[in-house]
Parts: sequence; C-alpha cells; structure tokens
Amino acid sequence: MQFNYNIGTKVIFGTDCIRRYGQDLSVYGKKALIVTGGRSARESGALDDICNMLSSHNIVFEIYDRVGNNPSLDNVEEGGKKARQCNADFIIGIGGGSPLDASKAIAVLASNEIEPKELYANKFKYDPLPVIAVPTTAGTGSEVTPYSILTRNDLQTKMSFGNDATFPKIAFLDARYTESMPREVTVNTAVDALSHAVEGYLCRKSTPVSDIFAVEAVKSFGECLSSLIDNRINLDIREKLLYAAMLGGMVISHTGTTVVHGMGYNLTYFLGIPHGKANGLLMKEYLNFIYDRAGEKINILFKLLKIRNVDEFGDLMDLLLSGRPKLGREEIEKFVLITMQQRSTLNNIREVGKSDIEGILKKTFAVL
Amino acid sequence: MQFNYNIGTKVIFGTDCIRRYGQDLSVYGKKALIVTGGRSARESGALDDICNMLSSHNIVFEIYDRVGNNPSLDNVEEGGKKARQCNADFIIGIGGGSPLDASKAIAVLASNEIEPKELYANKFKYDPLPVIAVPTTAGTGSEVTPYSILTRNDLQTKMSFGNDATFPKIAFLDARYTESMPREVTVNTAVDALSHAVEGYLCRKSTPVSDIFAVEAVKSFGECLSSLIDNRINLDIREKLLYAAMLGGMVISHTGTTVVHGMGYNLTYFLGIPHGKANGLLMKEYLNFIYDRAGEKINILFKLLKIRNVDEFGDLMDLLLSGRPKLGREEIEKFVLITMQQRSTLNNIREVGKSDIEGILKKTFAVL
Repeated sequence: MQFNYNIGTKVIFGTDCIRRYGQDLSVYGKKALIVTGGRSARESGALDDICNMLSSHNIVFEIYDRVGNNPSLDNVEEGGKKARQCNADFIIGIGGGSPLDASKAIAVLASNEIEPKELYANKFKYDPLPVIAVPTTAGTGSEVTPYSILTRNDLQTKMSFGNDATFPKIAFLDARYTESMPREVTVNTAVDALSHAVEGYLCRKSTPVSDIFAVEAVKSFGECLSSLIDNRINLDIREKLLYAAMLGGMVISHTGTTVVHGMGYNLTYFLGIPHGKANGLLMKEYLNFIYDRAGEKINILFKLLKIRNVDEFGDLMDLLLSGRPKLGREEIEKFVLITMQQRSTLNNIREVGKSDIEGILKKTFAVL
Repeated sequence: MQFNYNIGTKVIFGTDCIRRYGQDLSVYGKKALIVTGGRSARESGALDDICNMLSSHNIVFEIYDRVGNNPSLDNVEEGGKKARQCNADFIIGIGGGSPLDASKAIAVLASNEIEPKELYANKFKYDPLPVIAVPTTAGTGSEVTPYSILTRNDLQTKMSFGNDATFPKIAFLDARYTESMPREVTVNTAVDALSHAVEGYLCRKSTPVSDIFAVEAVKSFGECLSSLIDNRINLDIREKLLYAAMLGGMVISHTGTTVVHGMGYNLTYFLGIPHGKANGLLMKEYLNFIYDRAGEKINILFKLLKIRNVDEFGDLMDLLLSGRPKLGREEIEKFVLITMQQRSTLNNIREVGKSDIEGILKKTFAVL
C-alpha cells in the first residue's frame, strides 16, 4: 500500500453554516476581497449572508464581481491587482467553479507579483492569501480541491494549476445556495461531480482513501438520480448533490482526472458545451475503453447507480443530458492533438493514444 | 445534514516513505527537535531513517528522548523547555501514542510561555511549532488527530486537549516501523484503533464522513483478525492495521470518543492496563448498553468482523486480550466519579449516568 492523503480544507456543511461558523474567519484578517461572477452569488443569497456575517465581525470587504465563465488569465490578473490595491488579507470566493477557481489564482497573484502564466510553474515564493470558498453549484468540488482551472487562450484549452498551498482554508457548504440553479445547470454540475468520482476511482492515481470517497460520492449521486430525471429536486436532494460534489472534489484532490476531462475541455472551449455535460457525454465510451482493465470496479459503481452495464450508463446520461453536437473531421483531429497534451491524459488506467481519443470522440459524436 | 470536516494532516503512507518524501520537511525550517520515548524509535529503525533524512537535507536536530508512558504535564514542560533552548523550528515525534501526544504539547509550550495546565484552555496566543508524526505502533491514530492526551496527576486521570492548530502537519506511516512491536502490544494497539472506529461510529458527534472512515477502519481491522488471533502478523497485515489506526484517528478527530475511553483511562491510570486493552475489555458491555439505540449500525460493524452478536464480540475480545483484573467496590465507586467528569462521557449516543457506568464496570470485571 502506497498513498498520500491530503485535504487541506476545513469543511463546514449544513443550512445556515455561514452564520453559525462565520466567526472562524476573523483569524484571517480584517479585510476581505469577495470574488464572484456576480449573478449566482447574489441570486443564491450567499453574497448577502457573507456580507452580513463579515459586517457583524467587523471585517471590512470589497467585491470583485467580474469573474467570467471559464475565466481567462487576463481575468485573474485583473482580480489579483484588485486584491493588492485594496490590501486584502484574504479572499472569499462565491459561486460555481469559475469564481472559486479564479479565487485561488487571485490569491496567488495577490501575494506574488508574477505573470499569470507563471501560475503553471506551481511554485510560489510567497504563500497565497487564504481562500474561503462558498459554492453555489454542486458539481465542481473546487471548494475542497487545490486546483484552479483557467482558460488558456494561448493554448486554446483549459488548464489547471494548484499545490498544497492553494487548498481553500475553509469551505462553507449550504445547499440553499444551490437552489437558484435551473434544472439544466443542476444536472450538468451533478454529472460533473459524478465524473470526478468515476474518473478518480478508475485512474492510475486512485488510492484506498480516494476510493472510499468515490464510492460514497457515487452512492449519494445514485440516491438523487430519479429526482434529477423527474425534476423533483428538493433541498434534501440538493444536500445530497452538494455532498457528492464535495466528495468528488476530495477524490480528484488525490487522483486528478482522466482523458475524459482532457477531451471535455475541447468541447467547452470550442463549442461552449457546459463542463459537466461534456464529461457526461464522453463517459460511456471511456468506460467501454477501460472496461477490460477495471470491470470489477466499474460494476461496483453500476450497482450504486442501479444499472447493469455500460449501455445502460449511456442511456442514463442521455436521459439527463439533452442533445449533443456533431463534430467535423478537422475538429476531431484538432481535439485529439490538444487532448494529447493534457496532463490528465497520462492518468488513464489504460494507456491512451491518438487513435483511442479519436475513437472515443467518433463513437460519442456523429461526424459531419 | 450538518457536519464539519477537518483533517489538518498530510499523510504519506507506504514503505520507505521518509526517504521518498523527506524533502517535504525543509519548508518547516533548519532545526528540528526529535521527541521520542527512546526505545521504540530506535528499535523500529524510524529514528535512524529520520536522522539520515534530516542530515541529507541539511536540517540540524537534537533529540529529546525522555517521554514516558502516558506522559505527565511535568514531562511535556521539560520537553517544551528543551525545544525553546535549542531554538527548534519544528518537532518530529516518533513512537507510539505517548511520544506523539507529547510532541503536540511540546510544540505548543515551545511557542507559548504558559503553564502546562493552561494547555487545557485550548487557545494559544502563538501557533504551535509544526509537528511531524512518525508512528511506531498501529493504534492511537495520534498521527492524524489534533489530540494530545496527557496524564493529569492532579486529577488522577488522563485528559486531552487539542484544536485545529495541533494537527501534525505531516504523518509518515511506514508499517515496517511497527514490526518491532511484540504480539501483545500489536494486539492491544490494534484494539485501540478498533475502539476509535467503533466509538466514533456510535456516538452523538458521528458525521457522514467520519462514518465512512469508521466503516473502512473496521473492515481493515476485520481483515486482520484471524492473523492477530493466530499470531501470523506479516508486513501486509501490519500495513492494514496501520491503515485502520490512521482511519480510526480520522474518525475521532471528528467525533471524539465515548464513555468507553472515559472509563478506560481509570484502568490505565490506577491499574496500569494498556490503553487499547482497557477499551477492548469495556466495549462489550458498552455495546449492550447502547444496542437499542444503534442496533442497525452495530450490526453493520459485526458483519465486517464476521460475528453475529454482542456476545460473539465479547468472545473475540477475550480471544485477543488475555486476562482482566478484579475490582474492589471502592475502586469502582472512584472510577465512576472520575468517569463522570470526562468530556467523552457526554458524547454517548445514550445518556450515561453514574449507575450505568457502575453497571458496565461490574459486568465487565469481577468484583472483589
């Protein structure tokens, strides 16, 4: 047995957790920069709760609400400048994966005067500012991972950095903040959480501990399946999804992802397909591709999802995720080349070559 | 769902882990104080491995090897002075629960000039020195908990302190270091790990995440049972026990322990019964006491141990733990009063009164 274990984030989970545990933040300083994409933070009520809590503990704050979807290096550079300008002691990220991932980058850039590209060196002279994470979606798990996934327009894809210092210090998980998500976003992000658990469970870097998180995540997702399909998504279900997403984050903190994420980034970057949906569409053929190597583990997951085989997994994704694009031959060629450069592609339990990626893409998407 | 999650320790698990990952220590400074009880650290080879690794990374060190069994406040006071005198940047604890727990106290006393009794205030002006933990037994789980359990001669019992700042920063878990334990110590400490998982799983503060750790711990312990009974304890078994102990530590980091530990401390303090054995002897009647409240969960554990009921659990403990003392009536009276003052007694899933504790003690031990 050889494994490392590290979850550098303290999780505070449950309704009203910000009010109940907000006093924990005062150790991080007297001035916070709140980082959000604007909309979900406001609509969910999370921003109000954070602001009220900060005020009641005499912590002053400013708000940077210009994080875009799939934030770029320019975006986090601007945020980093803002954090320096306002002398923030710590960062509070509120939102889906984009604001949370941006917060981690902004926290590094606030304490290190480096070019955003240098984030990918993954070594920083000064510790990043402490990050507090408040998710308003249940999918990314970013609130408990060290990863920051940013759009590299120079490389035409998304790419992650992160090390032990970039774990959020505290994550506040209140499922009420995920209630403002429409059904489609709820489903797409839930499938993202599922893909983290599935990929982490079935990759080279899986560990005994990441496996128990993965199994628990898939179990919790499985308990939500019929509600997701029938669009009966109450607060209990949202808690289970938030719990599954957190566990999925704990999994990939140890394992990273696989070629599914590697391929999926292309669909998001070039075609605007939401991240979770992209992974969900690709997973069926990925499972077919690795079934010979990991059949026993795959069947454990299938049992938790109450399905019998890979085809039924595909049917499930079709039920959840509506529509898929057609791809041109040149597009596929381009996606293959970009996917081959992703670190996650090396993490597969079965070695992946160009023709394998091409095969998965062609089987998943009709070719124009 | 309401829970907090926090494991502030990075775990590095596996044969030769100190050599492979020792470079991670240089971030903590240039001067280390090694804290041990002397014998197990040397016999296990852990001390040599640590010293070689420190030297190869140009970290100087001194050794404080005067930690006794069940260390007292005087003992950690002396260690704290030593750490200040030698200007240690960080502490490396090597050994069983006693040296690891002492390390945490010494780390606090090194950076805070307070009386040892003030440790129990659980608030420290200055962060403790970073602690690195290297267990040479598989039981306490102290390497991944914030707890430091010290002997309070003034109160005639053992008592714990600890907060988020007292988690070891890194734990190196190499099962080879546990090979020098004789069979009896191996069994007693393994039963301690079991009791952490069982008590944590069946207490008021159990959480969804601590429960998955607990189940995995009991599963791993269960896989070692026949080897423990037959004294066929190879390195594979030692790894599973070390893994179970680590998981047990992760459980009680969230849940604390119960009245089993509360009662057990008396047996250790007054009768010198090893800590794990004390808990093991007491668990049968504890399970009987709470069975009505937690039968379903208890049966999940029994299935993992391949037993059918509480009586068979008792038989199992009898097989593993040889001999039990007889207690005098006055002794029982004294133990009841002291147990009632333990914090862990409040953590029971069923409220415990004096007569309940008396009942468990009388059923467990023949009365003189």
